[in-house]
Amino acid sequence: MAPLVTLTTDFGAGSGYPAQMKAVVLRSCPEARIVDVSHEVPRFDVLAGALLLEACAPWFPPEAVHCAVVDPGVGTARLPIVVVDPAGRRFVGPDNGLFTPFLGRGATVYEVLHPVSAPPRTSATFHGRDLFAPVAAWIAAGGDPVELGPPVRQPVRLAWPRARREGLLVHGECLQADPFGNVVTSVREEDLVAGTPGGVSAVEVDRHPARFVRTFGEGRPGELLALIGSSGRLEIALREDSAERRFGLRRGAGVIVTLASDVR
Amino acid sequence: MAPLVTLTTDFGAGSGYPAQMKAVVLRSCPEARIVDVSHEVPRFDVLAGALLLEACAPWFPPEAVHCAVVDPGVGTARLPIVVVDPAGRRFVGPDNGLFTPFLGRGATVYEVLHPVSAPPRTSATFHGRDLFAPVAAWIAAGGDPVELGPPVRQPVRLAWPRARREGLLVHGECLQADPFGNVVTSVREEDLVAGTPGGVSAVEVDRHPARFVRTFGEGRPGELLALIGSSGRLEIALREDSAERRFGLRRGAGVIVTLASDVR
Amino acid sequence: MAPLVTLTTDFGAGSGYPAQMKAVVLRSCPEARIVDVSHEVPRFDVLAGALLLEACAPWFPPEAVHCAVVDPGVGTARLPIVVVDPAGRRFVGPDNGLFTPFLGRGATVYEVLHPVSAPPRTSATFHGRDLFAPVAAWIAAGGDPVELGPPVRQPVRLAWPRARREGLLVHGECLQADPFGNVVTSVREEDLVAGTPGGVSAVEVDRHPARFVRTFGEGRPGELLALIGSSGRLEIALREDSAERRFGLRRGAGVIVTLASDVR
Repeated sequence: MAPLVTLTTDFGAGSGYPAQMKAVVLRSCPEARIVDVSHEVPRFDVLAGALLLEACAPWFPPEAVHCAVVDPGVGTARLPIVVVDPAGRRFVGPDNGLFTPFLGRGATVYEVLHPVSAPPRTSATFHGRDLFAPVAAWIAAGGDPVELGPPVRQPVRLAWPRARREGLLVHGECLQADPFGNVVTSVREEDLVAGTPGGVSAVEVDRHPARFVRTFGEGRPGELLALIGSSGRLEIALREDSAERRFGLRRGAGVIVTLASDVR
Repeated sequence: MAPLVTLTTDFGAGSGYPAQMKAVVLRSCPEARIVDVSHEVPRFDVLAGALLLEACAPWFPPEAVHCAVVDPGVGTARLPIVVVDPAGRRFVGPDNGLFTPFLGRGATVYEVLHPVSAPPRTSATFHGRDLFAPVAAWIAAGGDPVELGPPVRQPVRLAWPRARREGLLVHGECLQADPFGNVVTSVREEDLVAGTPGGVSAVEVDRHPARFVRTFGEGRPGELLALIGSSGRLEIALREDSAERRFGLRRGAGVIVTLASDVR
Repeated sequence: MAPLVTLTTDFGAGSGYPAQMKAVVLRSCPEARIVDVSHEVPRFDVLAGALLLEACAPWFPPEAVHCAVVDPGVGTARLPIVVVDPAGRRFVGPDNGLFTPFLGRGATVYEVLHPVSAPPRTSATFHGRDLFAPVAAWIAAGGDPVELGPPVRQPVRLAWPRARREGLLVHGECLQADPFGNVVTSVREEDLVAGTPGGVSAVEVDRHPARFVRTFGEGRPGELLALIGSSGRLEIALREDSAERRFGLRRGAGVIVTLASDVR
């Protein structure tokens, strides 16, 4: 099977920066297959990048190497790292919390201390091309992360947005919208079932009531909906319209789910 | 030759949704080559998706499998289908008219009734990843659509926008603009020649006269042009400017072509 | 190693036009690997396309064939050409200056006079699909450009924006912004060092002072920065903000670098 490298950045697909990363990957690993996860992560939004990786990386074959760069601190003291998560997935990028979802118990993290190649020219501003892409290609081609540098004991973790349970209430918040304007929240499917069969009695988003449904098509025009989205998170949506825009839902807007009383 | 899968959606290239579809394809068909047709189909615009497929699919090698998802009805009763068109091309997606251009005499359509794989998790909102991508990969890897389910006798067809001939007049309408602002219309090259050599004497678009030319470069600044575009349709254009924006051309705006009188 | 073709256009990634070019490449060279450099070159901006190629093409393996189409003159008398640059890189596209950075001493240029394939249908408006993509695929598959047509003695060259040195002053101009709003200028790293070790004493952009730094992270909020960017050009930037937008920096805005006096 050909080595597989994915790319996740906030560079913009048409900027030429992802192309330069691909060029570097193909130089050192010509048989690599490269898949774009996204180059449209909101600029400098490390949490958005982390949420996207959380939603996408588990779907790829386990041998894929995920190179991700959302890196406001490029050129500063933050470490370049490789994460090997408990499932064996490999991630390459900056140590700024971008890989928080994969830093659970059993993850190992290595600093990239030893360069794997001498690029024709390096820069202080484009580690995606000059540092992370070569490392990703090297790992994809069979390199062992342990050779790259010492373990990192305390990798940077983002304060991860989680739902909070209070009796029958689940408190969460809006996180971000997809291009349809469906808003992903910090409430996860498992926050609602709590290990027992049960149901949702009411959902409120930024003080607007939302109806809990199974899929978008059940909504009436203009009716605010709440549903378990494709990433296993509670999403706030409108049928064929943007809930984000119509209801002005920003990151941090409150979500309150009331569970049906037969759940406890 | 490696299996070839194309993707056409309204998901947004950077949303992570196309990446998840690709991940699923590569899981079950690791040697597949995946080509993006577009992930920027206007949201929920099934006709726009159908027009894009009509313009693009015929250029691909015939063994390509075209997976397309513009699907306002996801999770509702609309069927998942596979279309095999008279030229042998295979399409996978929702039965909502998205494949209308390929549903001519000789096309066969199958309902996808039997799942081809057990995805790690399914969702009611993302059939692109959980249903259509696995089927496309399975067909690309050699699966026969006949095994997927029963034939669909009456697949959904869009009311297809066609030009209407009245003597020397051809009546059509604007359909949609490309990123240059060139507006594709329902008038096709063959509507203008009618099997005989001839010519165009005048074009009028939304009551503005347009000059019929062979290529953009013949236009003067600000001059509205009409030409046979790369998809074989009459297009309305401005030289190095957006005809759509400058002339406010929306879908449905009328187009009238007057044929030269030596055509009959 | 599989043949490698890159694409650079102003078509828009989701327009379907790049997909049609890829389809044509895969038809005649099924094993080709295709990498998008960009489909978001500003429309008709040949200089922007040339700058992007200059920044990206050198990073690819030398056997890559670069097909580029920013072509306001499609269908007019401008020649289709293949450029073989002194480093052996091959470029396919219109003779309108798009390949200026690669037309140095030792470059050879061929007119594409003999078609390499008979496409199912040709158009006067989409040479990217009907002319350039087939030629790029043919070269990628091993074809020798010399067989395509006669040499072009005087290919079109853009007036290339260069910095001008006056004693300790280097005069340049803003060229274009990346998606972060970092503005690339006509001043190159070598314009600042002039073969001797030295330093930059001051930078002024459109009459605003900018501080010369090594990387973005050194900036204070709102402080205009100047640094050597990843393409070896002086860039004007703000930390985590758009210098282009905040300071209204357009192409042609003046840049003046004052070198430290120990440089001569």
